[in-house]
Amino acid sequence: MPTLLFISPHDHAAAWIDALRAQVPDLTYRVWPDCPDPADVVYALAWRPPPGVLAGLPNLEVIFSLGAGVDAMLEDPTLPNLPLVRMVDYGLTEGMTEYVCQQVLYWHRGAGDFQEHQRRRDWHKPQELKLARERRVGVLGLGVLGADAATVLKALRFDVAGWSRTPKTLPGIETFHGEEGLRTLLSGAEILVCLLPLTSETEGLLDAELFAALPRGAVVINAARGQHLVEEDLIPALDSGQLAGASLDVFHAEPLPRDHPFWTHPRIVVTPHIASLTQPRTAVGSIADGIRRHRAGEPLINLVDRARGY
Amino acid sequence: MPTLLFISPHDHAAAWIDALRAQVPDLTYRVWPDCPDPADVVYALAWRPPPGVLAGLPNLEVIFSLGAGVDAMLEDPTLPNLPLVRMVDYGLTEGMTEYVCQQVLYWHRGAGDFQEHQRRRDWHKPQELKLARERRVGVLGLGVLGADAATVLKALRFDVAGWSRTPKTLPGIETFHGEEGLRTLLSGAEILVCLLPLTSETEGLLDAELFAALPRGAVVINAARGQHLVEEDLIPALDSGQLAGASLDVFHAEPLPRDHPFWTHPRIVVTPHIASLTQPRTAVGSIADGIRRHRAGEPLINLVDRARGY
Repeated sequence: MPTLLFISPHDHAAAWIDALRAQVPDLTYRVWPDCPDPADVVYALAWRPPPGVLAGLPNLEVIFSLGAGVDAMLEDPTLPNLPLVRMVDYGLTEGMTEYVCQQVLYWHRGAGDFQEHQRRRDWHKPQELKLARERRVGVLGLGVLGADAATVLKALRFDVAGWSRTPKTLPGIETFHGEEGLRTLLSGAEILVCLLPLTSETEGLLDAELFAALPRGAVVINAARGQHLVEEDLIPALDSGQLAGASLDVFHAEPLPRDHPFWTHPRIVVTPHIASLTQPRTAVGSIADGIRRHRAGEPLINLVDRARGY
Repeated sequence: MPTLLFISPHDHAAAWIDALRAQVPDLTYRVWPDCPDPADVVYALAWRPPPGVLAGLPNLEVIFSLGAGVDAMLEDPTLPNLPLVRMVDYGLTEGMTEYVCQQVLYWHRGAGDFQEHQRRRDWHKPQELKLARERRVGVLGLGVLGADAATVLKALRFDVAGWSRTPKTLPGIETFHGEEGLRTLLSGAEILVCLLPLTSETEGLLDAELFAALPRGAVVINAARGQHLVEEDLIPALDSGQLAGASLDVFHAEPLPRDHPFWTHPRIVVTPHIASLTQPRTAVGSIADGIRRHRAGEPLINLVDRARGY
């Protein structure tokens, strides 16, 4: 019987398989390393599979990624040259947009300052409030996640601009692309949100040079991958005042080591890679749809372009 | 020459008058108590005018309120029976909506818990994230402020319901009215937002009985008037777990006294009546338009109904 092999030491296999089985009952489900008949495996559903595991499945036809980012999977030199389907999960997208909106509003409204005033029992009332329409937010990356975040930030009335490698358009949102477009976007972005895929081109993009290209007192929000940020450049930019704050959900090392200075910096908000989760109840629909398409001989959607890296 | 008298010890008169003069140059502007010719005053622009001041202006024709709420003005028994124009200021509306969205997202996303984990350097990763679409937010009051907040919360994908005294409809939002409708709305509202006008009917509405009608673990956000809340009922409801949190921007006494227990309660977010500000740059347009209408003999808009109280 055709088998789907679940490969992730980080996820709760039973929850995924129960949810998938309800939609695709006529498959055998196995959880790696429990796989007595590797030749039966047609589908893999994987997050950071140990290198070589996928290559050991001779009749594998489609790989489904459990996460939105496939950078870790693509680093495996033995990864079979098969269709690789990214996770597009409305729950993942919506959760990410909520995280981005929450962090943008936190900095836009000076919420950290008000919390500090509350701790001091200080009724400190500013004379002016800047409105969202007066605050430019730059979104790096206009894939499924970036496009949705930009659209909802616009509904919150922020002055949103977006940047992507190749030209894209979004209703009501100014968009830029390419190297020159990036400089233009950065020069106006009071709050910068990184939702880029991690590729050799984007690794280390959030560095001292980029911070210097932002308006003084800007805020950086990274909810993509820890490797987008040159970590040692962040605190100097905060301490010089070039940046007023940062919200970080992702890090070079996760969990973030207890002695890492990000934990205690007063202008850094640390969250434990929780901006968004891929959860079975919202995510299995797209996997089941991919299996249905594959069986029906229809083209798969949301395929990763390996040359591009995402 | 016809005169506009500015009456507010709380606001920066020069900023208002400079902005207004740019739009209505052919008026004399005075700042109370500097008013040598009370008989010249045709328009008053006022916030909490001392009782009797307006009654002492024999040729006054229109009163413009500097704030959205007119409850304090209506308490003056000597208030002349003249058209009273409420403040409808897009900046006030938008700022309020931003505050509401920020507080709703704060509680929805458990931001206070993540801050506490950060203080302890604790990489505590929940297994589940509830999405906005799975969280019911109830908005009390569907005037200009409540309708806008409900609409933008809906754009953030919250499951929004609204309540008002009289029936109202909003696209995509379930609405309730009257006493029975209030019970229904409360029974499902995990996050309750109060944006009601303060009247004899709404004073003290946020009390132990209302808290008990919410689902256990609900959150209350009050950005309307301090008198909507029975302050002594809040902490017992929090400490019993019936409420999980509260965000308060308004209080019975403002500034909130330094020894008030709200300052230090771990589940209360205190802000200093800053949810939204009426700021000259966004607000003078509607006042100038009111003056133009009055001079042209056109009907005034945004008039307060004194019997109703707002």
